Amino acid sequence: MSHSKGKLYVISGPSGTGKGTICAELLKDINNEFSVSMTTRAPREGEVHGREYYFVSREEFLENVEKGNFLEHATVFDNFYGTPKDMVIKRLERGRNVILDIDVQGGLNVKASMPDAVLIFILPPSLAELRKRLIGRNTESPEIVEKRLSKALNEIKFIGEYDYYIVNDDIETAVSKAKAILIAETCEVPDKVRPIIRKYEQEQEKGE
Amino acid sequence: MSHSKGKLYVISGPSGTGKGTICAELLKDINNEFSVSMTTRAPREGEVHGREYYFVSREEFLENVEKGNFLEHATVFDNFYGTPKDMVIKRLERGRNVILDIDVQGGLNVKASMPDAVLIFILPPSLAELRKRLIGRNTESPEIVEKRLSKALNEIKFIGEYDYYIVNDDIETAVSKAKAILIAETCEVPDKVRPIIRKYEQEQEKGE
Repeated sequence: MSHSKGKLYVISGPSGTGKGTICAELLKDINNEFSVSMTTRAPREGEVHGREYYFVSREEFLENVEKGNFLEHATVFDNFYGTPKDMVIKRLERGRNVILDIDVQGGLNVKASMPDAVLIFILPPSLAELRKRLIGRNTESPEIVEKRLSKALNEIKFIGEYDYYIVNDDIETAVSKAKAILIAETCEVPDKVRPIIRKYEQEQEKGE
Repeated sequence: MSHSKGKLYVISGPSGTGKGTICAELLKDINNEFSVSMTTRAPREGEVHGREYYFVSREEFLENVEKGNFLEHATVFDNFYGTPKDMVIKRLERGRNVILDIDVQGGLNVKASMPDAVLIFILPPSLAELRKRLIGRNTESPEIVEKRLSKALNEIKFIGEYDYYIVNDDIETAVSKAKAILIAETCEVPDKVRPIIRKYEQEQEKGE
């Protein structure tokens, strides 16, 4: 009915679960957008301020933290990363869905700050399969792989805080499930149904 | 994980909204089944007891009402129709989804008796369009058409009791939305998440 607001989706899951591929597929729909994060790390060749990231100083970043401007923020290798709340809200009001690819801790922070956010957890079919995928990447040492696996298990323990979960044993099925969730969410009956009913009532009043 | 139970879906909506087509499309998936209703009307040529309906006497029907054996029941043109609860439960336990094509009153009764039921409301794009579709059938008198329209509006007022709604302005889109809802529902994180977590924990305990 008329213009409706978008929804905020958080996609979390251990690294190696295909989360990135699922997000990329969702973003092929122009109704879905990533949010641009703020970071203190230096821009790499070709990166544009406001496109890949908002590149800011540590001082500016910490100011934003103090003002409560982030939906969630985290430290990775001494650099700060955060999701600016106002940017997300602007997109939602334009009717776009916003997709956040963040870890469980970030997801829970987002939910606390925006309870309407929809949280989706991507699971590996098994830890054995996850190990295989991580080793297959050939980019991580065995120690890092084991670290990631135990982090994975710790993350999975928070699944009860999420709205949906997708076991990715086949990437195509997993993608279509994620798409189905976004469609189903647009069909959810909202808390306030008066506008829906009113539309039909008015028609009848005018019609007869 | 492992064997999971099916879900009960109630599809309601004014006649002329394409509800029947949507149900028929959902039933093409072998995981989805109709439930066989009990009725007191006489079997028509070719109808088989236990396939189209369970044909019973008024006495037997009323006995079932008294015993609380129906999820919902209704009277149509002096005949009784009811959805036997035990049949629905048997199907759900076999892992099938059960699709009930019933009116709003029936839907609310089902929800009261089985709170896990998922209620989907099919809406016409407008009352004007609904009128056009009903007239297009050429089977109903103008009085019946107007009666159906005002019944439609009365039903729409209960939309707040439903979980999902689909505005059918294009039947293909409406069908794909219904299918998406069924897929998304299988991805919902259940109230009890221990079995999901346990699966990964056990693997780690065995693995290392």
